[in-house]
Amino acid sequence: MDDGLISAPAVLGARAMARCDLLGVAPYSEAADQLTRRFLTPAHRAALDRLTDWMAAAGMSVRLDAAANLIGRYEGTAPDAPALLIGSHIDSVRNGGRYDGALGVTLGIDCVDALATAGRRMPFAIEVIAFGDEEGSRFPASMTCSRAVAGTANPAVLDMKDAEGVTLADAFAAFGMPSVDLGQAARKPGEVLAFLEPHIEQGPRLEAEDRAIGVVTAIAAQKRLLVRLTGTAGHAGTTPMHLRRDPGPAAAEAILAIERICAAGTDGLVGTVGRMSALPGSFNVIPGAVEFSMDIRAETSANRDAAVAAISAEIEAIAARRSLGVSIELMQDLPESPCDPALTLLLEDAVRATGVEPRRLPSGAGHDAMVITDIAPTAMLFIRCRGGVSHNPAEAVRADDCITALNAILAFIANLERDYRS
Amino acid sequence: MDDGLISAPAVLGARAMARCDLLGVAPYSEAADQLTRRFLTPAHRAALDRLTDWMAAAGMSVRLDAAANLIGRYEGTAPDAPALLIGSHIDSVRNGGRYDGALGVTLGIDCVDALATAGRRMPFAIEVIAFGDEEGSRFPASMTCSRAVAGTANPAVLDMKDAEGVTLADAFAAFGMPSVDLGQAARKPGEVLAFLEPHIEQGPRLEAEDRAIGVVTAIAAQKRLLVRLTGTAGHAGTTPMHLRRDPGPAAAEAILAIERICAAGTDGLVGTVGRMSALPGSFNVIPGAVEFSMDIRAETSANRDAAVAAISAEIEAIAARRSLGVSIELMQDLPESPCDPALTLLLEDAVRATGVEPRRLPSGAGHDAMVITDIAPTAMLFIRCRGGVSHNPAEAVRADDCITALNAILAFIANLERDYRS
Repeated sequence: MDDGLISAPAVLGARAMARCDLLGVAPYSEAADQLTRRFLTPAHRAALDRLTDWMAAAGMSVRLDAAANLIGRYEGTAPDAPALLIGSHIDSVRNGGRYDGALGVTLGIDCVDALATAGRRMPFAIEVIAFGDEEGSRFPASMTCSRAVAGTANPAVLDMKDAEGVTLADAFAAFGMPSVDLGQAARKPGEVLAFLEPHIEQGPRLEAEDRAIGVVTAIAAQKRLLVRLTGTAGHAGTTPMHLRRDPGPAAAEAILAIERICAAGTDGLVGTVGRMSALPGSFNVIPGAVEFSMDIRAETSANRDAAVAAISAEIEAIAARRSLGVSIELMQDLPESPCDPALTLLLEDAVRATGVEPRRLPSGAGHDAMVITDIAPTAMLFIRCRGGVSHNPAEAVRADDCITALNAILAFIANLERDYRS
Repeated sequence: MDDGLISAPAVLGARAMARCDLLGVAPYSEAADQLTRRFLTPAHRAALDRLTDWMAAAGMSVRLDAAANLIGRYEGTAPDAPALLIGSHIDSVRNGGRYDGALGVTLGIDCVDALATAGRRMPFAIEVIAFGDEEGSRFPASMTCSRAVAGTANPAVLDMKDAEGVTLADAFAAFGMPSVDLGQAARKPGEVLAFLEPHIEQGPRLEAEDRAIGVVTAIAAQKRLLVRLTGTAGHAGTTPMHLRRDPGPAAAEAILAIERICAAGTDGLVGTVGRMSALPGSFNVIPGAVEFSMDIRAETSANRDAAVAAISAEIEAIAARRSLGVSIELMQDLPESPCDPALTLLLEDAVRATGVEPRRLPSGAGHDAMVITDIAPTAMLFIRCRGGVSHNPAEAVRADDCITALNAILAFIANLERDYRS
């Protein structure tokens, strides 16, 4: 047993990627022609069965916790040692990509496989975790399962319903888990040493800089808002242009203002209008109202809020100039969630050890790591994805990047072991 | 019997308005709290029963034609004389107004009532017609019933289905009219002398000029188009602004171009974006495509087409500048439909006789008159409506305007009689 770099057999890392490909089709997907693996579906069950086999083969003892998170534990040198958690979510969006979430789980398994093959045990345990629901693509809340682990899940979520009217409680029962108490999934203080989440970047920055992997500094601050501009509905054929109070062109001005303000911003500022609709929505009716969504993110809440304020002021000015009503409703407010500075330094050193100059970058997307922050220090490793495309069947990663990521994770574990002993 | 002005008892005209109010509630509406009277519904049947009573009381013989148009005939001085048709449609849009269509029918009944009360018969018959389906709010085609009268109905429309999957043929059967042959509703050459359609303006021009009534010159040319801009869907949090191919801001530029080009136009040019949607339509996804509708109208097809060409060129330039795909699909093309010049002159004289300086104006909306043009000269009388609001429960007319309209119709009949004899 030595304290130096742990080397992985060449097949590992690439195998993590191949396993995501295997999980990308039926029965691990609800649909034959696309990847849709939503929480507590038969596809989810099939994926957990497969992951259980892989975890066991890598030397882990496997259990399903009270929130349907699959956890494989590789003991440390002493029993009941606190655990380094490695993993991500195993659910997908509808018609999603194969690596979003799943790659973090399969890399975790390969990491343990490398340790077991090398006969190495750490003074801490390693647990590979596959969170059940990060995306919120079945029920109207996301990160339910990591919240359960953090002890922050609201028991009322068991009453929420999917599109077919099935409650989360009934879905658990149909999954073979009647009378679920999410609180039982909460980890006790001291059980979790740290959490490392490997995840595809879902953005184009690493690719643009030709880097295999990167280190996440923080998960961006996000606000979701719903804008409604109201005018007067009217007959499209009979109302002269100068007598209209049409909220459509006002919404158009607002959308261009969002683009302009965010493009001029710094600090990772992005703004997206993902939904827009005109009401009543007929070819031959001037809309009485137009609604559109705004998703505004930046590395810091302060920068994000400054952009929201500037955009809101422009929208209100546009509405006033056009004699329209306006409401801007805040739907969600997530402050920035920094990764643990000390743990992130260990990860940076580990990335450097693989020969990649560590690039620090924020995560524009939310991740389970921001939830686990409540109970343990967290770090996130990003893996380059082609074209920055995610939530899409075109999502793609490179096998050599996955090998680099695995080596970085192993180096991170070695760094953590060094610090843990000292 | 004299050839001079026919005077109406004071209650008439105002009664036409009051009768629309009566028909605006159950059982003449499908809903208790709004006016929805779609083709071949029990509400339609109830309205026809009531109109039958009113027509008979005014001295007309009443029949339902093969397309469920209700026709009351007031004979002329000779039997089997050709008929002046007066009327409009009795169906409504969902949650519509009480006067759109119905007022043309009830004014026709009051007109005959005035003639009968005065003991006057013309050398031509007068038929009051309540077309069954102008709006197309139940089945996916409009003006089915006036087309049947004009002999231009496509028999295939009997196979079209409503939202519940009921075919038009089945709906006729449920209405008590099995084995409908729309061709039987077609009028023979020479049967129809002319068609006068009184209708609310559905726009704000008469009100803006403080006029009770106006004379329609033509029904505007209209094109309906569907625009689709395509870019690349992406994660709202992870894609920097400068790396996006977002069709949303491009659609915004297009909507502003439509407004600018149409506002600068003349000749009744109007352009409306009534529908818009972003796909896939999630808060946190950059749209991969945006679709919006364009309804472009002008008094002449040439002017309309010039505007469509200018707008399309701008949209294509916007798409090219932003590296987006674009398609512009023509969904409907209706050329302008002029009213009969000689008949319109008679109507202008009649309007002048009521003390209103006749204002000629185009109709931005389509009407049954544009269909009946195929078999007879047509004229249209517009009645001022409050705020130009139509297709809306707030639709409103003034009783004194309805009286003025009735007097204009009576004067028009006198003018037509004078011309007919000479």
